[in-house]
Amino acid sequence: MAAFARRIERLRPSLVREILAAAASSDIISLAGGLPAAETLQAPAMPADGWQQYGQSEGDMPLRIAVSELLDSRGLECPAGRIMLTTGSQQALDLAAKLLIDEGTRVACENPTYLAALQVFRLFGADLREVDSGMAGPAPDAIAKCFAEGAPNMFYAMPSISNPTGGIWSEDARRALVERCDRAGTVLVEDDPYRETSAGPHPAPLVGSLKRAPWIHMGSFSKSLLPGIRLGFLAASEDLFPLLVRLKQGADLHSSRLSQAIALADLRDPARDRRLARLQAIYGERLEAFAGALRQELPMAGWAKPSGGMFVWARLPGRDTSALLDPCMKAGVAFLPGRECSPAGGLGDWMRLNFTACDPERSREGLARIRRCLEELRSSI
Amino acid sequence: MAAFARRIERLRPSLVREILAAAASSDIISLAGGLPAAETLQAPAMPADGWQQYGQSEGDMPLRIAVSELLDSRGLECPAGRIMLTTGSQQALDLAAKLLIDEGTRVACENPTYLAALQVFRLFGADLREVDSGMAGPAPDAIAKCFAEGAPNMFYAMPSISNPTGGIWSEDARRALVERCDRAGTVLVEDDPYRETSAGPHPAPLVGSLKRAPWIHMGSFSKSLLPGIRLGFLAASEDLFPLLVRLKQGADLHSSRLSQAIALADLRDPARDRRLARLQAIYGERLEAFAGALRQELPMAGWAKPSGGMFVWARLPGRDTSALLDPCMKAGVAFLPGRECSPAGGLGDWMRLNFTACDPERSREGLARIRRCLEELRSSI
Repeated sequence: MAAFARRIERLRPSLVREILAAAASSDIISLAGGLPAAETLQAPAMPADGWQQYGQSEGDMPLRIAVSELLDSRGLECPAGRIMLTTGSQQALDLAAKLLIDEGTRVACENPTYLAALQVFRLFGADLREVDSGMAGPAPDAIAKCFAEGAPNMFYAMPSISNPTGGIWSEDARRALVERCDRAGTVLVEDDPYRETSAGPHPAPLVGSLKRAPWIHMGSFSKSLLPGIRLGFLAASEDLFPLLVRLKQGADLHSSRLSQAIALADLRDPARDRRLARLQAIYGERLEAFAGALRQELPMAGWAKPSGGMFVWARLPGRDTSALLDPCMKAGVAFLPGRECSPAGGLGDWMRLNFTACDPERSREGLARIRRCLEELRSSI
Repeated sequence: MAAFARRIERLRPSLVREILAAAASSDIISLAGGLPAAETLQAPAMPADGWQQYGQSEGDMPLRIAVSELLDSRGLECPAGRIMLTTGSQQALDLAAKLLIDEGTRVACENPTYLAALQVFRLFGADLREVDSGMAGPAPDAIAKCFAEGAPNMFYAMPSISNPTGGIWSEDARRALVERCDRAGTVLVEDDPYRETSAGPHPAPLVGSLKRAPWIHMGSFSKSLLPGIRLGFLAASEDLFPLLVRLKQGADLHSSRLSQAIALADLRDPARDRRLARLQAIYGERLEAFAGALRQELPMAGWAKPSGGMFVWARLPGRDTSALLDPCMKAGVAFLPGRECSPAGGLGDWMRLNFTACDPERSREGLARIRRCLEELRSSI
């Protein structure tokens, strides 16, 4: 009866949401989501009073300063005045889309890329253009080809540990994208949530190399602190930041100040480096165990070891992983089909496997269930 | 250099944000914002573990059940399955706009109404239609006239304590809007954040009277618990809810689960009613003191005593309050000019005055500063 906005035609059901909901309500082993290991989740102290009242849209200045220092330590100079706290880095994607995307606006993404970014860009009507990417990012030629076909208004990239590949872009790929964005005035939107999940060394944020192009850089407190506080941040170039603040105000006034106070306490905690080293050690061990299990249980899979993050991006040559999901769910294991990570719905024989949420025994059992599914399908042909 | 989305042309600077920023960084007495009294803000205990991990887009089921029970106690039956936790009720406005508003979509609002709702509806391109409203809501004829000119796709209303008037709609106004929405299939978006700021009795949520029209009802934890946790909720009709959940996922995945755990603890606290009675007593006293000061300091102002909420909506006949703001800010007092609350920018001689944030002495001094400004302007003519 209600007349929906046109964008609602583009609002597809989220496969991930459905997988996660199914996995939460049953005995399914979920290798589908991107949940941190329970062992890494803190029980923080309640911060001192001062966070209870309404606050500024941009976030609280002490935390903005601390984030500015954090970015500085990563190699990106950005004053606190151009840092905003966001309700998860997901919100930064929503704000970027509101700022830059009309129906038909050309937006370039890696193929594969982060699926929830694709959902937001599609919702706002983006004309998605994909650039094939791998463990070392896209080939410079592929970037050049994308821009030659018509410069995108925005390029969304995860150059420092991608979701889903876990790769880090080569120097060549980084240089090629920066040059093209600078030449065309394309807004570089850099998503950098996974940096702290591995010890590095990590390259400096890519937006710092731009000379002219506008940019937005986004980070997260969900991967290395607490997803449940729903807090992320963005930094942006001077031309974009004030508009993003106004959009933020309309979106939710400001982010939880309690969450902000917890993040600030963590950034100021002298034991933070030790905590992160432990988290990185846990993830390193989980990855080793997962890699071993993957070699044994799915020897036909093609994959490369990620440099961090939470996923192994694996290929089952000749196999449609979207069609494989249903029997796997029935057999008690969930994963993310590669198609979901592909702007144009390609990569049908790939899958994204999470190695952080389940303990090694459970992960191995999940992979074994996938193997048994594959065997049954083969014998039933 | 960047090409912005067309909606950015409609993204005006927020006067309120600027007033609040100025007021925060100086000795300005702010009667402009809508901040709860500091005396009402709690220092909650840190909830038990369980909130740290990622959660469901809709929010945590125990809290959804508790909100469903809360709404039931207010006279609105809505199952927990159609309750969503939002990042402040501001986010519910953003989700409603995404769902329902394209460029040129007809959206009806009261005149005056909540200014941040206007900002969001404008951003998405609404063709705003206003219905003159007062302490008892709009006249039924005014509602009829609005629909006769072409049914709006959405009607945004605050029937149970409005921002800015503090009024409660009459039975006639309520019946008229419900009938029209049902007949036209207009989505009724009911904003109900202030109910708990006064003892009542309060009418049941209006959406519960609809027979056919789709609806969204939104509530807040900011006015009677803690603004700093940035948490609100929405309930919606069956046809709208699943779409709102998908939009919520794209906006920020889900709201802070720490905030949700604090709200749940409060709703389960046997002392909650006592706490609210105390809050209502504080606000009642502040309102009495404010009304007395207003009579003394601005005897020329026309206003009616609000039934709750945080504002007195006052008229200075023949005076352009937008032009008055600047000299008042210089004299150390801020208020919200009526124009900001008006869809078509009318109501130029009205002003919204907050009575909850400042203590009575400071509020009286604020009103005295407005009086002195008016006197100076008069003598300088």
